[in-house]
Amino acid sequence: MQQYFIKGEAVSNLVIEDQDTIKHMFQVMRLATGDQVVLVFEDGIKRLARVVDEKEYRFEVIEELPDQVELPVDVTIACGFPKGDKLEFLAQKATELGASQLWAFPADWSVVKWDGKKIAKKIEKLQKIALGAAEQSKRNRVPDVHLFTSKSDFLAAFDQFDSILIAYEESAKAGERAILLEALSNLASGEKLLFIFGPEGGLSPDEIVQFETKGGRKVGLGPRIMRAETAPLYALSAVSFALEMRH
Amino acid sequence: MQQYFIKGEAVSNLVIEDQDTIKHMFQVMRLATGDQVVLVFEDGIKRLARVVDEKEYRFEVIEELPDQVELPVDVTIACGFPKGDKLEFLAQKATELGASQLWAFPADWSVVKWDGKKIAKKIEKLQKIALGAAEQSKRNRVPDVHLFTSKSDFLAAFDQFDSILIAYEESAKAGERAILLEALSNLASGEKLLFIFGPEGGLSPDEIVQFETKGGRKVGLGPRIMRAETAPLYALSAVSFALEMRH
Repeated sequence: MQQYFIKGEAVSNLVIEDQDTIKHMFQVMRLATGDQVVLVFEDGIKRLARVVDEKEYRFEVIEELPDQVELPVDVTIACGFPKGDKLEFLAQKATELGASQLWAFPADWSVVKWDGKKIAKKIEKLQKIALGAAEQSKRNRVPDVHLFTSKSDFLAAFDQFDSILIAYEESAKAGERAILLEALSNLASGEKLLFIFGPEGGLSPDEIVQFETKGGRKVGLGPRIMRAETAPLYALSAVSFALEMRH
Repeated sequence: MQQYFIKGEAVSNLVIEDQDTIKHMFQVMRLATGDQVVLVFEDGIKRLARVVDEKEYRFEVIEELPDQVELPVDVTIACGFPKGDKLEFLAQKATELGASQLWAFPADWSVVKWDGKKIAKKIEKLQKIALGAAEQSKRNRVPDVHLFTSKSDFLAAFDQFDSILIAYEESAKAGERAILLEALSNLASGEKLLFIFGPEGGLSPDEIVQFETKGGRKVGLGPRIMRAETAPLYALSAVSFALEMRH
């Protein structure tokens, strides 16, 4: 059944006001009075709802649904600004794979330079992609997207995390393979994990030191070299496999 | 260091004959006499080699390298023909993530219909993408690509596998989450795993029965709905995490 995220607190009766949502509901999906959809308010609970009046875009909530598909830990993927439309790709795929947040920051070896205006437009675009992907993959929450204008702002945000992992190719090469398993096994439900990835050229030695000073641990993601946009998908799949596939 | 796959058995002195390889080596990378590259013959062993004569495209092998980055099991990803360029996407990403083979078959609910000519062209294109991705991700082998013209040919190929898993959304929904972990934990090094994925609309009930009759087991890939092209990436990451990250 079609699912829509609705801004604001949960209510039992509502009129849809978001124009994109109205368009998708009543033009693309041609919802009519009596049709049912799933609405997800900001509390993350899915609710079965019925169209009460298709002309007024009015719905009534029928019941809460038990579906809970979020990862047991809150994973923030943070990438050095990559080239091209790789963040757009990641916004879709990281959402499907359960990320809570998609962040990006200007890394030392990022080729692209984005100013504040470009960043604001990019965030808006990425947030829309994440919304669409979250509806398609039936998430309970839409991942937050944030692009930092400076690395110091990014570093200042580290304190909110329980665990910080740095995807580091040299760690993979050196065969330090057990660290990821150990780090994920030690995560408790509800904890916040920051997983950092470099841009195409990788993270600089300075960045590694900065991130380690703030509590980050280097982890390898296997022996094969992955592209910048592929490594976060591996990491999210590993988190799911390690924490969701046990019972 | 740049890596190239070379057709045929390993030799100590050779002249490159493949035009695409020559172009990449001597025009794109501008290799000169004395420069070193890694050559990988069909035995999958990486060898350090030196340009002996840049005009004649002549190399000599210096030494074997110990790098071995292949997954401990041989994983074949088989997808119902998907729409658009999703197989192209998968040829790249499945190669980065360690697949041994990428297969596709006309599934009951595949929207696209490809004839023999289209399939031959598609295989050629996909094989090129896999080659490029295998060089970039420093694989020891280039994944084989095969597209089946009929489902019966696909089914006839099942006998060569030690284990067959069917990615099945309903299994994910029903919470049968431990099966993947158990199935992967029981794989011995060198075994051959076939991992089957549906097209956008999923596998038909008939197909599930056919695959189960041939020894396939349904597995869920977590509670979130993934797109057709994302599920194989999850599966390959899970195989790597389960088998490569332990020690």
